[in-house]
Amino acid sequence: MGMASINAQAAGKIELSDTSWVSVGAGVRVAGIYSDEGAPDGDSSLDFDTQNIRLYVNGQVAENIGFTFNTDEIFADGPVDVLDAFVSFSVNEQVNFHIGRHLVPADRIEMNGPFYGLTWNQYTQPLYASDQVDVAGTYGRDDGATFWGKTGKFQYAIGIFEGLSGDGTANQGDSPLMAARFAYNFLNMEDNPAYYTSSTYFGGLGDIFTVALSLQSQSDGVGTEESPGDFSGYTVDVLYEKALSSGQALTVEAEYKSFDSDYEGGSPSDPTNFGLFDGESYFLSGAYLLPGDGMGRFQPYLRYVENSPSNFDSSTLTEAGLNYIIKGHNAKVNLNFASGDANISGYKGQDTNSISVGFQLQI
Amino acid sequence: MGMASINAQAAGKIELSDTSWVSVGAGVRVAGIYSDEGAPDGDSSLDFDTQNIRLYVNGQVAENIGFTFNTDEIFADGPVDVLDAFVSFSVNEQVNFHIGRHLVPADRIEMNGPFYGLTWNQYTQPLYASDQVDVAGTYGRDDGATFWGKTGKFQYAIGIFEGLSGDGTANQGDSPLMAARFAYNFLNMEDNPAYYTSSTYFGGLGDIFTVALSLQSQSDGVGTEESPGDFSGYTVDVLYEKALSSGQALTVEAEYKSFDSDYEGGSPSDPTNFGLFDGESYFLSGAYLLPGDGMGRFQPYLRYVENSPSNFDSSTLTEAGLNYIIKGHNAKVNLNFASGDANISGYKGQDTNSISVGFQLQI
Amino acid sequence: MGMASINAQAAGKIELSDTSWVSVGAGVRVAGIYSDEGAPDGDSSLDFDTQNIRLYVNGQVAENIGFTFNTDEIFADGPVDVLDAFVSFSVNEQVNFHIGRHLVPADRIEMNGPFYGLTWNQYTQPLYASDQVDVAGTYGRDDGATFWGKTGKFQYAIGIFEGLSGDGTANQGDSPLMAARFAYNFLNMEDNPAYYTSSTYFGGLGDIFTVALSLQSQSDGVGTEESPGDFSGYTVDVLYEKALSSGQALTVEAEYKSFDSDYEGGSPSDPTNFGLFDGESYFLSGAYLLPGDGMGRFQPYLRYVENSPSNFDSSTLTEAGLNYIIKGHNAKVNLNFASGDANISGYKGQDTNSISVGFQLQI
Repeated sequence: MGMASINAQAAGKIELSDTSWVSVGAGVRVAGIYSDEGAPDGDSSLDFDTQNIRLYVNGQVAENIGFTFNTDEIFADGPVDVLDAFVSFSVNEQVNFHIGRHLVPADRIEMNGPFYGLTWNQYTQPLYASDQVDVAGTYGRDDGATFWGKTGKFQYAIGIFEGLSGDGTANQGDSPLMAARFAYNFLNMEDNPAYYTSSTYFGGLGDIFTVALSLQSQSDGVGTEESPGDFSGYTVDVLYEKALSSGQALTVEAEYKSFDSDYEGGSPSDPTNFGLFDGESYFLSGAYLLPGDGMGRFQPYLRYVENSPSNFDSSTLTEAGLNYIIKGHNAKVNLNFASGDANISGYKGQDTNSISVGFQLQI
Repeated sequence: MGMASINAQAAGKIELSDTSWVSVGAGVRVAGIYSDEGAPDGDSSLDFDTQNIRLYVNGQVAENIGFTFNTDEIFADGPVDVLDAFVSFSVNEQVNFHIGRHLVPADRIEMNGPFYGLTWNQYTQPLYASDQVDVAGTYGRDDGATFWGKTGKFQYAIGIFEGLSGDGTANQGDSPLMAARFAYNFLNMEDNPAYYTSSTYFGGLGDIFTVALSLQSQSDGVGTEESPGDFSGYTVDVLYEKALSSGQALTVEAEYKSFDSDYEGGSPSDPTNFGLFDGESYFLSGAYLLPGDGMGRFQPYLRYVENSPSNFDSSTLTEAGLNYIIKGHNAKVNLNFASGDANISGYKGQDTNSISVGFQLQI
Repeated sequence: MGMASINAQAAGKIELSDTSWVSVGAGVRVAGIYSDEGAPDGDSSLDFDTQNIRLYVNGQVAENIGFTFNTDEIFADGPVDVLDAFVSFSVNEQVNFHIGRHLVPADRIEMNGPFYGLTWNQYTQPLYASDQVDVAGTYGRDDGATFWGKTGKFQYAIGIFEGLSGDGTANQGDSPLMAARFAYNFLNMEDNPAYYTSSTYFGGLGDIFTVALSLQSQSDGVGTEESPGDFSGYTVDVLYEKALSSGQALTVEAEYKSFDSDYEGGSPSDPTNFGLFDGESYFLSGAYLLPGDGMGRFQPYLRYVENSPSNFDSSTLTEAGLNYIIKGHNAKVNLNFASGDANISGYKGQDTNSISVGFQLQI
């Protein structure tokens, strides 16, 4: 694995001129999941799930002017949905813009997306408004504009977005959602497109130690038209990776998240009565990439998540997994065991044990 | 800008043989819009909008036999929707066919689509049935067959389509929609794929003066099952472009539209009670492309629209805009101010002032 | 037509390395259909229909590891829907896997899909659960895993799928759907991707005689939560093709299908009250490919279908058609006359006569 291509998904590119091109790629994540109480009648279940199927269409129209059009199957089985749809302008390393539907600056697991995580089940924590399907953005994307870049070892992304908006929502005055992410690379620089992240580089970038702070807030960003509330949240995330001999690597990842939602009740799926998690959440993951000369290499990992809503019981989830890395984030197989009562809502759910075998491919 | 490529969106092409190929391209239009009364509570608003995100997949399977598959995000945020899905046969310049879901022959702003217009906000006038979302076609497309071609300076397109149809609609006898467009190029020929149009060639085609007549009609094309009505409409559109020294160009565009709908009431979005505009509408636009040696060139413009329904008040809209043309219709930035009470319904709306900054890219 | 490429749809391929590539292709089927009683008021109708519009995105990420992402317009006019979304692993000719949303092993007309059939209207018979739109799979696809391969002249595909599943369905215990297809090629081998089929090779593979058995079953695969029933079905299909002088070919195709559904009533479109056909069905088709030196060659055919539900009247449909084969399954025109009262439900419908002109292109 050469360093340059470690986290580039290598789509097929068609050159049109010296300064213009279009590329086509795709990504798929499928899994078979055994759950000890997953059947409707409470018995065990075996389910197959196409978790992501993405089409990547990117292009550069002129020097420093490009677009990104990605799709996924978001809302349910069936439709191909628009994931990203934005134009990008690059002035230099310090000054870049994304305009349109694009990733809202946030914590690392959001900037990874599902394809660049360390662990298979990243989204077992409460998420920002932009990742509540179809109310104030979807899959972490929203319509807006982001200024991003880096200077030295400091990376930044500051954006303004729609957030919760529209008739019947709490946001009658059309307040924007403000979002920012600031990261400092104490050791080597992480290397990803734009302000995106990965939670492992498989040791290929050498030693990494990055600390990031992300912030989001929106006035009248939760609640109902009659009873609007403000939302603000922040996240601190840390990635440490140590490259060892024979291509081995130790990776440690952690996030602490604090959400302050001035509205109790509501639902993340109801725009007219929109509720977000209020409280704290954190996770800690550790992984070790083993040496190997075969088709792939093993990367066992352990992850622990705890979600603590302000006025309800805490919940936890432990995931013990084994990645089989064939071609970085572009081809891997995952086996994981998960046990606990924590989930994406942030509120305590059924205590479940599950075994999942997953396959991830990208091109 | 060479003449040959002026209005060709230059998708990435993969040759399969001497006579077959497939190409992939995309188009995106995003805008940030300030409106003085756009918030739900009547205050000012700032909104971001992904107005179009298109995937273009075209191919030639054998000599003179090809297909077009284009998508857009039509119905709401989220799904990728089928825009065009047709096969095409070319016998010669005079004799060509499109069969499947394709553009219904109509007036210039419809044949431009959003990407080849002169002004940013073309669709502030009442439109034909095929551009009433999902009732009798979408975005100007419908299922049908069109015969098209040109002879000398005369261009023609004559089609038969489904139009309003199906159980519960006014059209119990399954009458087809007939549509035609006839254009005469008094000066140089306009140069676009098939019977499509553009409202500016940035002076690249020399002097243009084209007058076109388009007609559409469908028996039982409006109303309800119990009270069906006939629809017919015609449009005259004119494009004048004068190429001047130093690459400058003067462009004048105008349309006059007259719709005769034998049914009062109903809605353009209700197939069982389908209503279309009845009355007249016109617009006049003028633009001037300035010289320039930089990254792009400025093209200020002015547009005035007036919609006059038969039995209701007239409404008007004035748009003053500035295009910044980086790469023809493939890369441009737009700034516009719009003021007035006219909109796509044809009926008087709220009097609004807005400022929009838009970005358009295609490849 | 060389043998190697007969049934390969030749998508545009972009090589990324010696072992990885991505390809993009598309398929479209459109038709104009005259029906003697097709209008809502019972009069004759002329309809245009975009029957299929597919995007094919395939890739190989590493040696023997690939993915397939295909779309179609399944549920209604408009959205682009996910058809196939799976990863594939090939160990050798004997051992291969598809995991994700993929084709459930079944009878030949399902393994053909609409693009590789002999006759235009294949789906006038009752189909398995995976081809009942959006309840237990769509267009013959479902989430699951299939092991497939061939040894000598014997081909096999054995899969496990979700089938009918979820809260509120008959399948409270989350029983899987089991599906298998076994085919023996008595003469030359059929040549298609994976375990897919075609119903004609236009004589290009020489003499073909294949007999196949397919089986599907699911406990609690029909009915309601309160009154679940088991489903099982089997199909025997036969293809015979004789290559004759001057490129002529005789093709005979037949299927016999027997469905045993332990639940009466319900509907194939209602997951909480899911009913499938119970009874027998068969069809017999014969075709003759004529010689020719022009752009294409004629292939007249005749097809007879009979559906016999256990407790209702039988119905039949006769189709007389003429294919005009321009480029195998990649470019053809079809004219057919159909007369009868059989349809995809398996239950007797209105007796209708129709004439259809269809166009099929793939790349």
